[in-house]
Amino acid sequence: MKATIDVCLSPELMHLYDVQGKVVVVVDILRATSCMTTALAHGIEHIQPFAKLEECLQAKHNGYFTAGERDGKKVEGFDLGNSPFEYMVPALQGKKIAFTTTNGTQAIAKSKGADTIIIGSFLNLETVVNYLRQQTKNILVVCAGWKGKVNLEDTLFAGAVVELLKDQIKPDCDAPLMAQRLYLDAKEDMVAYLQQSSHVKRLARLNIHKDIVFCLTPNQYQVLPIMQKGLLVDLHRS
Amino acid sequence: MKATIDVCLSPELMHLYDVQGKVVVVVDILRATSCMTTALAHGIEHIQPFAKLEECLQAKHNGYFTAGERDGKKVEGFDLGNSPFEYMVPALQGKKIAFTTTNGTQAIAKSKGADTIIIGSFLNLETVVNYLRQQTKNILVVCAGWKGKVNLEDTLFAGAVVELLKDQIKPDCDAPLMAQRLYLDAKEDMVAYLQQSSHVKRLARLNIHKDIVFCLTPNQYQVLPIMQKGLLVDLHRS
Repeated sequence: MKATIDVCLSPELMHLYDVQGKVVVVVDILRATSCMTTALAHGIEHIQPFAKLEECLQAKHNGYFTAGERDGKKVEGFDLGNSPFEYMVPALQGKKIAFTTTNGTQAIAKSKGADTIIIGSFLNLETVVNYLRQQTKNILVVCAGWKGKVNLEDTLFAGAVVELLKDQIKPDCDAPLMAQRLYLDAKEDMVAYLQQSSHVKRLARLNIHKDIVFCLTPNQYQVLPIMQKGLLVDLHRS
Repeated sequence: MKATIDVCLSPELMHLYDVQGKVVVVVDILRATSCMTTALAHGIEHIQPFAKLEECLQAKHNGYFTAGERDGKKVEGFDLGNSPFEYMVPALQGKKIAFTTTNGTQAIAKSKGADTIIIGSFLNLETVVNYLRQQTKNILVVCAGWKGKVNLEDTLFAGAVVELLKDQIKPDCDAPLMAQRLYLDAKEDMVAYLQQSSHVKRLARLNIHKDIVFCLTPNQYQVLPIMQKGLLVDLHRS
């Protein structure tokens, strides 16, 4: 049987999808999975994702740097926020990070039970797609969205994956088809395309235009963040 | 405050939206709301929607014709199925219909509590948009989808409404924006655009191409199906 690709546009729809036996790609472009990709590319040893703030903060006692974001802002008491540029510093090389965000780490939690969980972002798009090409299992792209609602940037990433795999895998459901059409419509200038997006407007108010432009730039890194025993590591280093 | 428009892409996301005080437009292009529009346009007195098959069938004892569809097919024991052409017959004029479908009547049930519930389809698109132009309340388009998952045809209708109202109401969330972009991409030839859609493929296997083409034809009727005391009636006749 040929592999299939499907897209879950919001974590609130996850009960409609069976993750068992699948390769799940979790995506939260602005900015959780972009940060995770950047962190592993810059030599962070591993990332432990937490759905809850309190549990994440506790990891400090186990030698973790803590990264906490809610509503686009860094949470008080945490070492790091949700800007990819924070993860490029040499001081973090070889360190462990405990990570919690509004949407991204919740989407990871809901993907539990999948055969494989990997992290996708535009920053490692090609690496993700090359990895998926080698798989024989069915694929599910899980968009983190915004507090349960769908968002444009995660959908565009899902659409990019569908488009780049189209010669091998045909989308068989409407969500991947919609994502693919939107990506084809947007790909020439994603920054401009996203200007109207609600989350981009929300983040623009936080003065992080530089983050947005970076997170929408494809193929900056060759890392493949993969979940192994509850920890995100770079497959190529593990 | 200026009115807003939002789109709920699946009934499974309805808990994220507050319908109170809103005008809700329920859409199930293939084919529940297209049938309802057609039925009222052809002189059916009113339609009572039911979420459950058994309750719908009971209405037979109260002088109702019963219409029951599950998985695209007419259910045994019901008078009518889910093809708009079934509702064009003179024998049904002035009659009452009890209606239950896989997705459409469920979406109506989940919209309970809204200030106003109307029914939309491409067949009465312009009438729906003209009605919405006169409203000052916030608008929510509820897509019936397919068994909880999003579908392309309902999303395209939502996008058409957003596009046609854009001079008065700006979409403030990503779902209406996505729907609008998809509609703009599709509008020149919606039948061709939908060829790849999962639901259209499913229905094509049931040999209802004629239904699909009809349901995607804008502005065939000037009826405005509106919920009054649990019954769908044509606003212009009520």
